[in-house]
Amino acid sequence: MREPGGTPLGESVRQLLLDSEQVEPWAEVFLFAAQRAQLANEVIAPALDRGAWVISDRTYYSSIAYQGRARGLGEERVRQINEYGLAGVIPERVFVIEVDPGVALGRQSRPDRIGREGVRFQSEVHAAYRDLAAIEPDRVILLDGTLPVHDLVSRIMEVLGEPI
Amino acid sequence: MREPGGTPLGESVRQLLLDSEQVEPWAEVFLFAAQRAQLANEVIAPALDRGAWVISDRTYYSSIAYQGRARGLGEERVRQINEYGLAGVIPERVFVIEVDPGVALGRQSRPDRIGREGVRFQSEVHAAYRDLAAIEPDRVILLDGTLPVHDLVSRIMEVLGEPI
Repeated sequence: MREPGGTPLGESVRQLLLDSEQVEPWAEVFLFAAQRAQLANEVIAPALDRGAWVISDRTYYSSIAYQGRARGLGEERVRQINEYGLAGVIPERVFVIEVDPGVALGRQSRPDRIGREGVRFQSEVHAAYRDLAAIEPDRVILLDGTLPVHDLVSRIMEVLGEPI
Repeated sequence: MREPGGTPLGESVRQLLLDSEQVEPWAEVFLFAAQRAQLANEVIAPALDRGAWVISDRTYYSSIAYQGRARGLGEERVRQINEYGLAGVIPERVFVIEVDPGVALGRQSRPDRIGREGVRFQSEVHAAYRDLAAIEPDRVILLDGTLPVHDLVSRIMEVLGEPI
């Protein structure tokens, strides 16, 4: 699944987040948190209850990095707000594939509203993910994005095989 | 102005809030907080800066009552979340016109998603507003909705004439 999105409400919120001309920083935090709370309760929690593995493209660690750090709203505040909505539906592993921010931005053919923030913003995001990995090394795993895909997959499978 | 709504982003969020089939309780909190942060920063703060009086149909005290109390998510949490987004753009006076919840619901010809929650829910909302008025008697003013409109207006003008 992907976020923002993954539910009827969440896909509508995704459009607002990516296409709106004007989104205040805190409105952005709340819109991400809204679609995430919806996804956690409507989709992820029922999937976990039936024993499924859930793989998501992004999680609330992205909000901690983007809005908490790069937009300067406070990492702990953004974490707390999101955790209220998640009601314990927290990812056991967060894989962060590190790529040079300039290289990553160069790959976007049509950057969205957040992609247009530029290299300095992306560098702050990158620094935030590194800090998150330092704080929770068992949960947040940094991967070298210059490695071949095969090697990345091997490393991810290795980590997933370890006891939590 | 009205909320939810009052900005392009806010009007889109309003539609989601009122028309979506499934909205998780915390998603509801965050969607209200998102449109409110947008309204405060995009519309209300600039209006105050040019010396205007701002009158709004609803404010974040509604979220404290509806989501914090009636949905049981915690009044202090909902207050704190909203205040992050408002960045000090706080109403100086909140007028609550009290009407018996059963009477009020009977007046809705086509109740929206929240209006359909019923009398018990509305009674909790009512109790929450009463508590808010007890906690902040200078800010939250209860008015007797059985009075003629003329008397209500007189009372409101009287309060607005008092120093803050």
